[in-house]
Amino acid sequence: MTNPMLFFSTVQGVFPKDLAPTFDKEPSREIRQSFGTTYGGNYKLHWEEGPRTILIIKKPNDEQTDKALVDVASWIHAKYPHTNVVVEPDVAENFAESLPFVYTIPEGKRVEYTRVTDLVITLGGDGTILHTSSLFNSAVPPVISFSMGTLGFLLPYHINNYQTALAKLIENRNASLLLRMRLKCTLHGPDGRRLQAKDGSGRINDLTVMNEVNLHRGRYPHLTSIGCFVDGHMITEAVADGLIIASPTGSTAYSLSAGGSIVHPSIQTLLLTPICPRSLSFRPVLLPPNATIQLKIGDKSRGPAEVSLDGKETFFLDKNEFLQVCMSPFPMPCVNRVHAGEDWMKDINDLLKWNQSFHNKQSMSHYISE
Amino acid sequence: MTNPMLFFSTVQGVFPKDLAPTFDKEPSREIRQSFGTTYGGNYKLHWEEGPRTILIIKKPNDEQTDKALVDVASWIHAKYPHTNVVVEPDVAENFAESLPFVYTIPEGKRVEYTRVTDLVITLGGDGTILHTSSLFNSAVPPVISFSMGTLGFLLPYHINNYQTALAKLIENRNASLLLRMRLKCTLHGPDGRRLQAKDGSGRINDLTVMNEVNLHRGRYPHLTSIGCFVDGHMITEAVADGLIIASPTGSTAYSLSAGGSIVHPSIQTLLLTPICPRSLSFRPVLLPPNATIQLKIGDKSRGPAEVSLDGKETFFLDKNEFLQVCMSPFPMPCVNRVHAGEDWMKDINDLLKWNQSFHNKQSMSHYISE
Amino acid sequence: MTNPMLFFSTVQGVFPKDLAPTFDKEPSREIRQSFGTTYGGNYKLHWEEGPRTILIIKKPNDEQTDKALVDVASWIHAKYPHTNVVVEPDVAENFAESLPFVYTIPEGKRVEYTRVTDLVITLGGDGTILHTSSLFNSAVPPVISFSMGTLGFLLPYHINNYQTALAKLIENRNASLLLRMRLKCTLHGPDGRRLQAKDGSGRINDLTVMNEVNLHRGRYPHLTSIGCFVDGHMITEAVADGLIIASPTGSTAYSLSAGGSIVHPSIQTLLLTPICPRSLSFRPVLLPPNATIQLKIGDKSRGPAEVSLDGKETFFLDKNEFLQVCMSPFPMPCVNRVHAGEDWMKDINDLLKWNQSFHNKQSMSHYISE
Amino acid sequence: MTNPMLFFSTVQGVFPKDLAPTFDKEPSREIRQSFGTTYGGNYKLHWEEGPRTILIIKKPNDEQTDKALVDVASWIHAKYPHTNVVVEPDVAENFAESLPFVYTIPEGKRVEYTRVTDLVITLGGDGTILHTSSLFNSAVPPVISFSMGTLGFLLPYHINNYQTALAKLIENRNASLLLRMRLKCTLHGPDGRRLQAKDGSGRINDLTVMNEVNLHRGRYPHLTSIGCFVDGHMITEAVADGLIIASPTGSTAYSLSAGGSIVHPSIQTLLLTPICPRSLSFRPVLLPPNATIQLKIGDKSRGPAEVSLDGKETFFLDKNEFLQVCMSPFPMPCVNRVHAGEDWMKDINDLLKWNQSFHNKQSMSHYISE
Repeated sequence: MTNPMLFFSTVQGVFPKDLAPTFDKEPSREIRQSFGTTYGGNYKLHWEEGPRTILIIKKPNDEQTDKALVDVASWIHAKYPHTNVVVEPDVAENFAESLPFVYTIPEGKRVEYTRVTDLVITLGGDGTILHTSSLFNSAVPPVISFSMGTLGFLLPYHINNYQTALAKLIENRNASLLLRMRLKCTLHGPDGRRLQAKDGSGRINDLTVMNEVNLHRGRYPHLTSIGCFVDGHMITEAVADGLIIASPTGSTAYSLSAGGSIVHPSIQTLLLTPICPRSLSFRPVLLPPNATIQLKIGDKSRGPAEVSLDGKETFFLDKNEFLQVCMSPFPMPCVNRVHAGEDWMKDINDLLKWNQSFHNKQSMSHYISE
Repeated sequence: MTNPMLFFSTVQGVFPKDLAPTFDKEPSREIRQSFGTTYGGNYKLHWEEGPRTILIIKKPNDEQTDKALVDVASWIHAKYPHTNVVVEPDVAENFAESLPFVYTIPEGKRVEYTRVTDLVITLGGDGTILHTSSLFNSAVPPVISFSMGTLGFLLPYHINNYQTALAKLIENRNASLLLRMRLKCTLHGPDGRRLQAKDGSGRINDLTVMNEVNLHRGRYPHLTSIGCFVDGHMITEAVADGLIIASPTGSTAYSLSAGGSIVHPSIQTLLLTPICPRSLSFRPVLLPPNATIQLKIGDKSRGPAEVSLDGKETFFLDKNEFLQVCMSPFPMPCVNRVHAGEDWMKDINDLLKWNQSFHNKQSMSHYISE
Repeated sequence: MTNPMLFFSTVQGVFPKDLAPTFDKEPSREIRQSFGTTYGGNYKLHWEEGPRTILIIKKPNDEQTDKALVDVASWIHAKYPHTNVVVEPDVAENFAESLPFVYTIPEGKRVEYTRVTDLVITLGGDGTILHTSSLFNSAVPPVISFSMGTLGFLLPYHINNYQTALAKLIENRNASLLLRMRLKCTLHGPDGRRLQAKDGSGRINDLTVMNEVNLHRGRYPHLTSIGCFVDGHMITEAVADGLIIASPTGSTAYSLSAGGSIVHPSIQTLLLTPICPRSLSFRPVLLPPNATIQLKIGDKSRGPAEVSLDGKETFFLDKNEFLQVCMSPFPMPCVNRVHAGEDWMKDINDLLKWNQSFHNKQSMSHYISE
Repeated sequence: MTNPMLFFSTVQGVFPKDLAPTFDKEPSREIRQSFGTTYGGNYKLHWEEGPRTILIIKKPNDEQTDKALVDVASWIHAKYPHTNVVVEPDVAENFAESLPFVYTIPEGKRVEYTRVTDLVITLGGDGTILHTSSLFNSAVPPVISFSMGTLGFLLPYHINNYQTALAKLIENRNASLLLRMRLKCTLHGPDGRRLQAKDGSGRINDLTVMNEVNLHRGRYPHLTSIGCFVDGHMITEAVADGLIIASPTGSTAYSLSAGGSIVHPSIQTLLLTPICPRSLSFRPVLLPPNATIQLKIGDKSRGPAEVSLDGKETFFLDKNEFLQVCMSPFPMPCVNRVHAGEDWMKDINDLLKWNQSFHNKQSMSHYISE
């Protein structure tokens, strides 16, 4: 027996109102962001009715998370029987016995996730949230994330408290959202036209990332020469192992390893961070959110460059092909436990061990005359 | 004979309209900025009538600039005879013969600069613009800056073209403005109350900076321990030579020397950059524009810390006293020659020698199999 | 017609005397280095008789270098007819007509390079010298390097002056040598035993590098976890894109891109420089020359790591396999034009654009009160 | 009653034998170092007879250290009655009652410390050892350092174990020494002649530092322009807050804060590390130990620069005056508890929190496909 497919026409996503930035003339059911607005922290979600369809995304291959899935899904099904619970197809298959009531959206119909989902619950770590982001190329509904006990930048809630947190959200029908900027990436040929997939399946889709996209020499020992264009103007030619374009959320991920600054997620900016540049003076640069960045593989590059999206390798670009990146209009709306700012301060201290003084009082005496 | 004092009551500043961000319910004659708006580049200035009072600020002790001052002031006086030309008191004194028509605002009445000035012309370098900023603690009128031939981040126009540039601005009555964020700084005692000036002249004023404010150990060999608070929450204790809070404009000044990233001036953010921290992990952090930062001298500090404002040392803070910094509502509205973004890209390349590749083609062969 | 093979038994390399560090009890014909001696600059080479066999290594696929090869080889053959000129087999084949007199050493007999060569001439860039280094796994004879006009760290002589430079060297029979430290690398299985080549050709040889060896995640998106051991003691576990062990000569190559310091080639040290570490505090470390470093792929690594030697990818290491690196006893003895120190100072300025001030006088005025 | 002055002529320092590097033709009673030798770790101290005069240096104003001083001095006096115990004059005065037997060397006769002392015991932290170094401008006898419980780079022994450690050292008459390089600094006028003290007391002495000497703008807001010369050749002009010349021991002190690499103390090198340079490309440089560095205040500098020695501000240099630094022939011979290398590895991990990974397993999932 297989799980029932979700019958789309009967499901009505009730998307948040009052959330579109005031710049948008026509209030939209989708959560969008515009240039020139500061996101984060204080967006107030209000649903007119409770979420009808809830998507649960779980970390794979982890017993503790498996158990949490069964608990959470069963609890929702029992407490809110009119709510549809959706999981990914392979999950539905694995849990066919314990969760016979869950719906799925078939692989080929990913675009439906946006249309039908009113709320996403993630069970796992930061990686699970990145995976969730990858399922939504356009608008994302509110996402509430539960940690299995480990720390993470994107994990405001502990699984032990799921009943309280979910009941409050579903019944009060409001929440505080941090709208995390995402980046929209497209791949282009030398003539500017969109690249076609190698497997003949047509044009490569728009790709949306939450942390970063990076161009990297990958396994090729040759350095990559990358022309960097902003709004059509060349700003520099990078000879480097690679280049990262990161969102503020991604500023604490790969960009940080490559030497970038830590950027609060409510700031609107695109980080351009080089990876091992062949230059002493290639300091990271923060570009405005309305910039359109193009990274073009140079004529002199001796091999293709790899495009990785949120840490997953996906595509190769050859000479003169380019990657185009700009702010996505569709942020990741993350439900916050407390004021976002405080969470973030705590996270950069706990997770990054930011500014761990390397000297106790005594050894400071290097500089203290006695 | 002394220069005539400007008779304030007869001068009507005609401040720009249509410039206040749309968030401001009541359009204001002052140029202001709010959180959550992206400044820069595309603000369109429109005057209903031409500027009636023009302030000219010049670099001191430089013959070429002296000559430029006489040229520019005389040209304005001849071409726009109803316009008041204002200079600083010492300048008026030095040029009493060649520029008998200029007005001054007495030292003790600096607050009048904001009230009467419709336009500022600067002649000199970036330092001259910083000095101009220091004259305006509240709203600043549009500023047009002329370079004497040297390069600078804030210098879109060359003095040779002053007639064209000024005539266009004054007669067309519109311009493209880059609103450069400024920072508002106040000094507080351990009890939170504002510090009093040492000379008994009362409470120390609000201080407004364009590049950065920094707390530094100065000549004291002892490291400074600084408690960093954001919106009332302690985020870290810095043991360092000092700490910089910079605006995006200041990101290419002292903050850059201390290891900060380069930030486009249209991004709204406050940069927190440590100076020689006693920690391997004190990476620079970019805070949101609505953050209120407090830097408090630690109990364990063995000497006072110096507060420098835009590179000028001004105050000392003792144990438990603190500096408070937030975004000023009064930006520096700089007239742009061309699209701001392009200027900036060119500047970081020309001025910073950003990403100067350290290898010509040949020596890249380190990595190229032959 | 093929080129004649070099008949080894009739060739007598006359290796430099008086060169072995005074620590070596028995003066050796080989140029060696020991721990605890500073190399560089002032080693005086003296040959009892002129070099009998000269190896010429050229950059491939470059017309100008092709011409230089013919000129130099023909000039040597004419002027010093008793001298054997050796080139690489593919070069001999390509130049069979113009250089019928050259000898070769067959691919399978690379070890003979050390035995027979008295002097190496390189024509090309820094890459040509790295390639030369790769031909000599044990002792290297003196190397004199000619630039084709481009700049390089290892290129003291311009090709236009080859006759003067070579005549002086060959006839005076002495030179000033900079002994550039090389690194000896071996690959080991989890049990410590040397790894076997995948092609069944037996144990993988000792590998000698001049710039650096690096372990890198390559095309695998997963970070590599590397246990770092020094003299058998674990010093840290690196979670990073990779780790570089560089010689001082290599400090201006890949290690510099990854954030390492610039180290004068006469200092004896091993540089450990992380590539994009997942840590804010992984500062590069300089280890003593007598350290034996082991880099072991961690249990948790999800893919193999690539070992690159002087920029050429060569091997993969799996979980628990390790790379061992120590100072090679066989340095690269490079003939200096002038005092080595001065060359180096000039090179880091010309090639690296080290400390290019980013402000002209005017823009320094950020900090200059007017 | 005052403490007895040490009667010099009756005291015979028994300096270590067998310690002079083999390069020194005539074995010296002083511990010296030469260029081209690697110091550290494995120097074996052997005394022909036990130390006759022991200098004890203590951290000031610390009760716990006061008590330790009385314990240690009394124990030595009781157990080795023929040994002279020396303390600093102010200490002798403060402990006149509890330690009536101690000797002193008068302030004006500091040079006698080298002549009479056979062994130094330090009680306190790293700062106490720096202070000890400052007492010895020429040769230093072996130094054994006891920690009061806090951590430090230079603190191999815990005070609780003083009896065991001292008895072993004094009775076995041998120890393992780490010879820590020191730097010799002199101050010169524009004509190269040595500067005179401002107080008319004659030529300013040679100054010896253990960590670093730095030139800094101090309280002057103006940047300092410093010409850097190595062996008489200008290598660069630094526009910066300051410049540090550090020893390898100092690489984990101020140089590290300014961005320098961590250097094992057995490597012979001079670190040149800029402080907040006005250049994107001023990467730290490691110079060879035989380099003579001159740092000359530039013509354009608008104020004097401060010279700080091991963190203590001492002198000012005006325009065209210069500081000259080279390796001192007189290292700091520190008694090691265990093999120096292991201590060091542990220290950089414990004290610097070097390479603290900022991600637990879970949050690594940023990069791990699930």
